[in-house]
Amino acid sequence: MVFVSDVPPRFDDQFITYFTELIHWRRDVRRFRPDPVPAELLEKIIHLASLSPSVGYSQPWRFVSVRGSGMRSAIRTNFLTCNQAALASYDGEKAELYAKLKLAGLDEAPEHLAVFCDLETQAGQGLGRKTMPEMLEYSTVIACHTMWLTARAYGLGIGWVSILEPAEIARILGAKKSWKLIAYLCIGYPREEHLDPELARHKWEQYQKPEILVR
Amino acid sequence: MVFVSDVPPRFDDQFITYFTELIHWRRDVRRFRPDPVPAELLEKIIHLASLSPSVGYSQPWRFVSVRGSGMRSAIRTNFLTCNQAALASYDGEKAELYAKLKLAGLDEAPEHLAVFCDLETQAGQGLGRKTMPEMLEYSTVIACHTMWLTARAYGLGIGWVSILEPAEIARILGAKKSWKLIAYLCIGYPREEHLDPELARHKWEQYQKPEILVR
Repeated sequence: MVFVSDVPPRFDDQFITYFTELIHWRRDVRRFRPDPVPAELLEKIIHLASLSPSVGYSQPWRFVSVRGSGMRSAIRTNFLTCNQAALASYDGEKAELYAKLKLAGLDEAPEHLAVFCDLETQAGQGLGRKTMPEMLEYSTVIACHTMWLTARAYGLGIGWVSILEPAEIARILGAKKSWKLIAYLCIGYPREEHLDPELARHKWEQYQKPEILVR
Repeated sequence: MVFVSDVPPRFDDQFITYFTELIHWRRDVRRFRPDPVPAELLEKIIHLASLSPSVGYSQPWRFVSVRGSGMRSAIRTNFLTCNQAALASYDGEKAELYAKLKLAGLDEAPEHLAVFCDLETQAGQGLGRKTMPEMLEYSTVIACHTMWLTARAYGLGIGWVSILEPAEIARILGAKKSWKLIAYLCIGYPREEHLDPELARHKWEQYQKPEILVR
């Protein structure tokens, strides 16, 4: 584990430059090299994710490493079904473009990690989620993003697959009833590096400058 | 704006060490110095947040800088009401401890930023959210976390206030009907720096080592 100082760190311009590069170059990766991900690296990334903020310090994230080939195959089947239904919802040129997009790396990614949120955890004792119960799920989402950035810093790529039926994936993996699937992540070393998102490169959608309203 | 190279960056051990420190030292900040946050720094942080991943590249985040003192006061009133109701839900020692916790820096924070998700955005054309429509909200949560880490790198602190009624805050701010409040953020320079979360320091909840199941 990396040494962590007990003196509050100051981050210099060089760090900020690289951190800015990290944010720019993080991608949703769908093309992976077959090289395995060292187990201790995956553990390190999950450990860092577990330091993410969570409502009431509830730490509701639950990680399932999906290794069984039967399970992976059932998940792949679910993706193909959902993706076919999604394709059928588009017409003309849009359907043609959709059909050409590569939307997941389920076949190639050496690691599959399902991230659940335990909706019935007692940890945190409800603090901060009486008026916003969704904060429990949001905390788990935040952990996924910590993992995403950390993975990229270590040269790994993550692809978040959402073209899946969450309840069906939970059933396939035999997850507890109180666990809600938040993310299904493909993890591995990327085959390609890009500064622009896949969907911008293929003209599905363009960057939008964020609007800041003042009230 | 920081220069971004068009060559895929490699992150060295020094960067990883500092990035690890950043993850360890990011806190939910509730005690702020009165010093103003430079407008261009806030814009820079929001710009970096806008590079976050979003489902179908939908970029559904909408930012509202809350400056009006009437609005801030109405939001503070909502917080106090919700916090009182939350306190009433605890008994005995837990109630005593809850009453002592500082759960928001609404009075001190020089900047208040409400982050909404536009649930009716056409951007991304529904890609990736047919089976998981919540991905739109999750994308906005991810942008908030990019902002959180970036702010800390620049020496700023963010506190995410969830003891609020989202619909009431949206009403106070006159947000569009399709905008859902995801986060109400207090932003400013922190008065204190801590390695441990406030709720751990005050014995509300302890760190839990993440479990990784293998399937």
